Amino acid sequence: MREFELVDHLRRRLKTTRADTRLGIGDDGAVLAPPAGTELAVTTDTLIAGRHFPVDATAFDIGYKAAAVNLSDIAAMGAAPAWLTVALAAPTLDAAWCGAFVDGLLTACSACPGEQPIDIVGGDTTRAECLMISVTAIGQVPAGRAVRRSGARIGDVILVTGTLGDAAAGLDLWARRHAHDATIDALVARLNRPPLRRGSALAGRAHAAVDISDGFLADLGHILAASGVGARVDIDLLPAADALADVAPDAATFRRWQAAGGDDYELCIAAAPDQVDALRDALGCALTVVGEIVAEPGLVCLDRLGRTVAPDTLGPPGWDHFDPG
Amino acid sequence: MREFELVDHLRRRLKTTRADTRLGIGDDGAVLAPPAGTELAVTTDTLIAGRHFPVDATAFDIGYKAAAVNLSDIAAMGAAPAWLTVALAAPTLDAAWCGAFVDGLLTACSACPGEQPIDIVGGDTTRAECLMISVTAIGQVPAGRAVRRSGARIGDVILVTGTLGDAAAGLDLWARRHAHDATIDALVARLNRPPLRRGSALAGRAHAAVDISDGFLADLGHILAASGVGARVDIDLLPAADALADVAPDAATFRRWQAAGGDDYELCIAAAPDQVDALRDALGCALTVVGEIVAEPGLVCLDRLGRTVAPDTLGPPGWDHFDPG
Repeated sequence: MREFELVDHLRRRLKTTRADTRLGIGDDGAVLAPPAGTELAVTTDTLIAGRHFPVDATAFDIGYKAAAVNLSDIAAMGAAPAWLTVALAAPTLDAAWCGAFVDGLLTACSACPGEQPIDIVGGDTTRAECLMISVTAIGQVPAGRAVRRSGARIGDVILVTGTLGDAAAGLDLWARRHAHDATIDALVARLNRPPLRRGSALAGRAHAAVDISDGFLADLGHILAASGVGARVDIDLLPAADALADVAPDAATFRRWQAAGGDDYELCIAAAPDQVDALRDALGCALTVVGEIVAEPGLVCLDRLGRTVAPDTLGPPGWDHFDPG
Repeated sequence: MREFELVDHLRRRLKTTRADTRLGIGDDGAVLAPPAGTELAVTTDTLIAGRHFPVDATAFDIGYKAAAVNLSDIAAMGAAPAWLTVALAAPTLDAAWCGAFVDGLLTACSACPGEQPIDIVGGDTTRAECLMISVTAIGQVPAGRAVRRSGARIGDVILVTGTLGDAAAGLDLWARRHAHDATIDALVARLNRPPLRRGSALAGRAHAAVDISDGFLADLGHILAASGVGARVDIDLLPAADALADVAPDAATFRRWQAAGGDDYELCIAAAPDQVDALRDALGCALTVVGEIVAEPGLVCLDRLGRTVAPDTLGPPGWDHFDPG
C-alpha cells in the first residue's frame, strides 16, 4: 500500500463527529471553530520506541498510549480534550499495523471521560528508520479557567488521582508479561494504557495541577517551583493498587515505584481543602490527599510514623530522556 | 546539558509576544485565546533527515524549513499563522545545534508576512536514533472563510505564487553547493528555505488553494479531485526563476523541475478571473495565471504552441514518502 492509499484508508476511519470541527483530515489543514468564551489548551508529546513504550509493544497499545499521554496533559490544564493531530514515522508501511495503531488512538479517545467526543483532525505518515509518534492535543477550557502549575497556595492540600506506581512496576515486570499472571497483566496494562481523567473537573476547583509522567515527586516539584512554595508529603499515603504490594520485592522498591517511578499519567492537584469532595465527585475517580502546600521552600517527605524520608532514597529525581543512565 | 536544562534554555528563547497567547511553553500545555469570530486552521507536518532535508543540512536550515512547510499549509487554508508547537527528536543533545535550530524556527516565523507575530507555544525534545522534527501550526481565519481544496469552479483561473522548480533544481545541484556559484547557491537556498506567503490574502478572494509540496501537477490534482473538475494548464507559463534556465541541462529537465519537482512550497490557487489583481496586491508577491478550471475531468497540459504534453513525460506524479523508488 502506498502512502496516498494508506492516508485515504486512515482518513475514512477518522471521520469527525464534533459540531465545532468544520473540516477534518484531507485538506492542507483542519478547520476548527472553538465555541465563544473558551480558551484552548495545546500540548505536543512525542513517543519513541524503546524510550516511551517497549519496542515489542503492540500497535494498539502504542496508539492508545500516544493519545493518552497527550490527553493527560490536557486534563492537567483543566481542559476538555477536543482535537488531536497525529504524526507517525515508521520504518515500514503495514496496513494491519496502522489499522491497529488507529484502533488504539480511537479507543483512547473514546475512553476519555468527557461530554463530547474527540476528533482526530490531522496528521501525517512518513517513512523513517525509527518508530516515532508525535501527537498534538487541543482542549477547551472556559476563558480564564485554565489550571496552571503556578497557582498552588499555602494551605492547599495535595491530591493525586487513581493509584501510583503501577506503570513503573509494569515496566519492571515487562519480561514476565506472558506468565499468565493476572496481577502482572494488570500492572503491565497500566504501563501500556495510561488512565484517562476528566480534567475539566479541575477548572474552577483546583489551584494548580500537573500530570505525573516523570514520577510523583519530580512532577510535584514542578508545581512547587512554579508556585514558589514548598510541600509536606505523607509518603505512606500515596495510593497504591492492591497488586503493587503483591509484586514488590521489598519496601524500598514499592516506595520507589510510587514516588519516583513515572509513567503514571495520574493527576497531581493542589486545591483548597474545602474543594476535595467536589473535585472527587466531578472527577469520578479515586482522589487521595497525600500532603499539603507549605510556605517553607522544598519538599519534605514523611513516613507513617512521622519520620523524614530523604527524597534521594526514593529514586532518581524524574525521568531525563537525554540522560544515558 | 541535560534535557531539563536544554528545555529551560530554549524556553527563555521562546518568549511569547501575541496578546492572544495566554501561556506559552513551561506548563502541561499552552493556553491560547483565539479572537471571537475566527476559526482555526491546524496542520501537522513531520520532517525526517534524508527525506525532507539533506542529511548534511545545517541546523538553522532544518529549523527554518520545519516551520516554513507548516506555515505553507496554513497559508494554503487562507489563514494567518499564529502558533507553532515543535517536537524535536535527535540522536544527540547539542546546545549549539539546538540553538541554531531554534534560530531557524524563529527566523522563518519572523519572515512570514502577516500583521501579527507567530508564537512558538509548545513542544518537546527527545533522544532518538533518527533526527526528526514534527511541527503543528495553528492559524486564524475569519469564520467561514477558510479556503479548501474543494472550492474550485469552472471558469476559475489557476494561479501560482513565486516561481516553480527552484527547489527541485537545488536538490539536483546539492552536491555542487560549495562551488561558489551564486546561481546554484540561490537554488539551494530555495530548497533549504521555502518561501513564506501571506495566506490570509486568499480568504474571501480564492475559491480553492493547495500548497505545492509534492509537485505542481500532483498538488493541482488534489484541487481537481476535491472539486470534481478538470483543468487546462499552459505548461510553458509556469513561472521560472532566471537561474533555472541557466542550470537546466535540457528542456525536459527544466519542465520536470517545474511541473513535478516538488518542495516548492508556493501556493496553487483557483480564483475567479476578476480576483487576480486583488489577490496579487494582497499577497504582495509574483502571481501568475497558468491555466483554467474546466468541466471536463482530468488535467490537460499544453505547451506554448498549443500542443498537448503528456503528464507522464513531466515526471512522477508526486512524491510518495513510502515509495522506495
